[in-house]
Amino acid sequence: MSAASPLTDLEIARRATLRPIMDIALAAGIRHEAVELYGNYKAKIDPAKLAEDQAEPRGRVVLVSAMSPTPAGEGKSTVTVGLGDALAKAGHKTMIALREPSLGPILGMKGGATGGGYSQVLPMDDINLHFTGDFHAITSANNALMALVDNHIYQGNALGIDPRRIPFKRVVDMNDRTLRQIVVGLGGPSQGVPREDGFDITVASEVMAVFCLSTDLKDLKRRLARITFGYTYDKKPVTVGDLGAEGAMAMLLKDAVKPNLVQTIAGTPALVHGGPFANIAHGCNSVIATQTARRLADIVVTEAGFGSDLGAEKFMDIKARAAGFAPSAIVVVATVRALKMHGGVAKENLSTPDTAALQEGLVNLERHVDNAAKFGVTPVVAINKFTTDSQAELDAILQWCRRKGVEAAVADVWGEGGGGTGGDELAAKVARAVEAPQNFSPLYDLDLAVEKKIETIAQQIYGADHVEFAIPAKRRLAEIEANGWGRLPVCMAKTQYSFTDDPTRLGAPSGFTITVRDLIPKTGAGFIVALTGAVMTMPGLPPQPAAMRMDVNDDGEITGLF
Amino acid sequence: MSAASPLTDLEIARRATLRPIMDIALAAGIRHEAVELYGNYKAKIDPAKLAEDQAEPRGRVVLVSAMSPTPAGEGKSTVTVGLGDALAKAGHKTMIALREPSLGPILGMKGGATGGGYSQVLPMDDINLHFTGDFHAITSANNALMALVDNHIYQGNALGIDPRRIPFKRVVDMNDRTLRQIVVGLGGPSQGVPREDGFDITVASEVMAVFCLSTDLKDLKRRLARITFGYTYDKKPVTVGDLGAEGAMAMLLKDAVKPNLVQTIAGTPALVHGGPFANIAHGCNSVIATQTARRLADIVVTEAGFGSDLGAEKFMDIKARAAGFAPSAIVVVATVRALKMHGGVAKENLSTPDTAALQEGLVNLERHVDNAAKFGVTPVVAINKFTTDSQAELDAILQWCRRKGVEAAVADVWGEGGGGTGGDELAAKVARAVEAPQNFSPLYDLDLAVEKKIETIAQQIYGADHVEFAIPAKRRLAEIEANGWGRLPVCMAKTQYSFTDDPTRLGAPSGFTITVRDLIPKTGAGFIVALTGAVMTMPGLPPQPAAMRMDVNDDGEITGLF
Repeated sequence: MSAASPLTDLEIARRATLRPIMDIALAAGIRHEAVELYGNYKAKIDPAKLAEDQAEPRGRVVLVSAMSPTPAGEGKSTVTVGLGDALAKAGHKTMIALREPSLGPILGMKGGATGGGYSQVLPMDDINLHFTGDFHAITSANNALMALVDNHIYQGNALGIDPRRIPFKRVVDMNDRTLRQIVVGLGGPSQGVPREDGFDITVASEVMAVFCLSTDLKDLKRRLARITFGYTYDKKPVTVGDLGAEGAMAMLLKDAVKPNLVQTIAGTPALVHGGPFANIAHGCNSVIATQTARRLADIVVTEAGFGSDLGAEKFMDIKARAAGFAPSAIVVVATVRALKMHGGVAKENLSTPDTAALQEGLVNLERHVDNAAKFGVTPVVAINKFTTDSQAELDAILQWCRRKGVEAAVADVWGEGGGGTGGDELAAKVARAVEAPQNFSPLYDLDLAVEKKIETIAQQIYGADHVEFAIPAKRRLAEIEANGWGRLPVCMAKTQYSFTDDPTRLGAPSGFTITVRDLIPKTGAGFIVALTGAVMTMPGLPPQPAAMRMDVNDDGEITGLF
Repeated sequence: MSAASPLTDLEIARRATLRPIMDIALAAGIRHEAVELYGNYKAKIDPAKLAEDQAEPRGRVVLVSAMSPTPAGEGKSTVTVGLGDALAKAGHKTMIALREPSLGPILGMKGGATGGGYSQVLPMDDINLHFTGDFHAITSANNALMALVDNHIYQGNALGIDPRRIPFKRVVDMNDRTLRQIVVGLGGPSQGVPREDGFDITVASEVMAVFCLSTDLKDLKRRLARITFGYTYDKKPVTVGDLGAEGAMAMLLKDAVKPNLVQTIAGTPALVHGGPFANIAHGCNSVIATQTARRLADIVVTEAGFGSDLGAEKFMDIKARAAGFAPSAIVVVATVRALKMHGGVAKENLSTPDTAALQEGLVNLERHVDNAAKFGVTPVVAINKFTTDSQAELDAILQWCRRKGVEAAVADVWGEGGGGTGGDELAAKVARAVEAPQNFSPLYDLDLAVEKKIETIAQQIYGADHVEFAIPAKRRLAEIEANGWGRLPVCMAKTQYSFTDDPTRLGAPSGFTITVRDLIPKTGAGFIVALTGAVMTMPGLPPQPAAMRMDVNDDGEITGLF
């Protein structure tokens, strides 16, 4: 993240002294019998085996969101971990709830995704690689379904599934562009029925979204049964329940649904569980993990993908609504770099101090801060400090926040850690915010027509003038109504770089139109995806994949993961 | 397995009282620090952390093989477990080494693959489902390679890989015939380079074979680097090492290579690790698991896929040679059912007593028994008892064995368990056999030409007159020689139902020709696959997949897995 630090994230992680995860669990109030060890430093927690006086989720939820990010990201996970550590240090009973990283991007660009600097969850190499196997279980459940679907067609197709109308895809947890568009079932009558197909990355699977929105195993099975994987020759939806595959799929997920407990460098307990895409899905860790954390802690710090226009909006309107809880504060992560970018500075010059450009970029932060109020939730601005930031730049942001009347703090959780002093001020302000009177409500009512829900989000959150629906989207709106899916919430798939659907329009544009290209009903997850612009559900590898620098020595120690 | 038993395998497994796996480990002489728990009843063992006086593999190896099987199998895993239990009960320090089951066949036909009746390894549902994630790690490593290969071609193809000459495939651990023949990379220049492709099942992956033949992580990485995944436009082999992907692949496998410790119903320690196909690969559990077991126990009972013509021959000529140990006894599992089948009885009548037909079928058993001697290893016949067997039939086998001069015992390890009295006699005879003077040698010398190695196996083990090489096989022989792979051992891919390459020719045929259709060099695993007849590397699902009856209840209990 910074050139000035002598240690990489992996080196910092290696030097940290881990406590046995059973100690972390017991200190968090988790009974011995609810802990299933995966080695010494990872465990699954069985929510059904928590103590009786831990039955009710009570903890207050702090959502870490962000302004519109630079391509490198603004360090939301790092702030989430650092804030959690600082709250714990200040004496609050705290748990952190994060998404699990996806292997595809790790081997592609990212290297790792477990926070950074002195604000990391550990063991970082395990979490970044197979962890406790949750994503593998989701991949298996997804692909078992598709093997059963194609086998059903091959064996006589009693359900009358139209092989040309199967939007549900197989998945791999890999960046593999070659699998985006394929033809399967070639080779003659004994090899299957040919059709156009493709693979998505596992995190884009509806099974992942279902997994993350389910309240328990029973709800998981019910949601799996509701997934519409395809349509009949007369265009009627066919669900997993019609095929009868939800039992086998839920069986394959029965252990994966238990949240994973790990620890931060400072020893704060963290549940790292689930990780759906933030475009085609809602981009938050599992409801089961968040609710388990709320049963155990007074404050739960969690995050949602991208900025407030995407992750936070979905967190409020999809996740919090499905789980039935009210978030108590939204932390909006801002960086000097991102503010300068929104003020017109080119990417290659973001390290050069430029307070004037930064001032220009504050309009972007402002809209994100204002968005928090739309849900009745108190915002707190967290300025995630980089070593290249000038004091004048940091002061300018703080000054603007004072004028705006929003609480703000500079957080050096990367360099100092929340267990140090880097998150103290932020933690104090967040602790005050969660004690303020609560007034949460979702942005829109489910009874609104799908069209109107999309317009509400576009106008109130993005600042758009109006929404245009392309021809396929209009046709789909009618189908959604006809199939009785009109009461589902909406999951917007939009670029994270802009409030508009054009990634190059930075700042806080107004007077623009959002174009909805198409809609995808995800009846198991329980939302309607609205596609604006192209949405990537299978990333590709770059010219120099991160995987090529990764290695393991004879003693099993990894290099190249950071 | 038998209609007379009131309990299914799953029910028997559920009623068993499991000891904490740490207790099993400590009792087996494994130090606390070498044990990585996966819940209470599964653990990975780190061979590098065993005690210093356990550095040398010393235990004697008993290989459980079989006569040519019926489609239902002759209960080799069940006998392996029951024999291990009986040896342990008799006071021998014993470990069992088995293959891990593959999820594809479990969801397809099999239901489960962890022994049967009172001779099972536990926890059977965990082992049959994701277990400790080894197969998922192998799938990931395999598919990471292929994503990197197609990305290399897409990004400019510096290595000059010919997209029409990439025999290495992506894999899923699923029976999914629709993926056998596919076209990938469609959709235009931004989506990849189109080519014909296909998926294999994970257990058919060369990564699985490499995994199972490696002696440690260092050897694993070296073997991965040697894999030939494709050829250049001028037909030169391209290896994983040429691409530079072995580091990332080994990293993804660093935990998977540690053997998994579980227990039998009787509490005997079992290492369940790896599971390559027995046709396209060598069909044995990992060398690391077998050698770890030999460091810990005096007797190691292990198995190899199919009959002595396939699994045992490969065990001797590939695995034992690669690992550098000498097997001490071969148990040849025979059943009344299989003997009657080889004596001409139709499958639907195999439950009806028919001593005359059984006598006719003994020629098949005889050739398997004689094969053991070809390697200088003592055979012991284990008659795996079914409830439908008549005493006259059992007596006829025992009588024949006496005349033949081979030790034999009826084993009711399914109904009684080896921890009961079902395996006592077999255990006593096996314990005597491993004490006899040892005289092991592989069947052929590696310096023989590939052609001659195949002829040696076909003539000496199968009883063939000669071997015919089809045109593609002849061309491939020349390539193998030109590429310097001529010193590799041979891995025969042949039907398990017959000594010939025609599955309908039962008994012990003579005067036949084996036709080698093609050869596939597996330079990472370190063998040349010789294909006789069609070889299935991606099974399909049946009309009524086992998955459709599988379910999990709200408490996480599985039904339909047996």
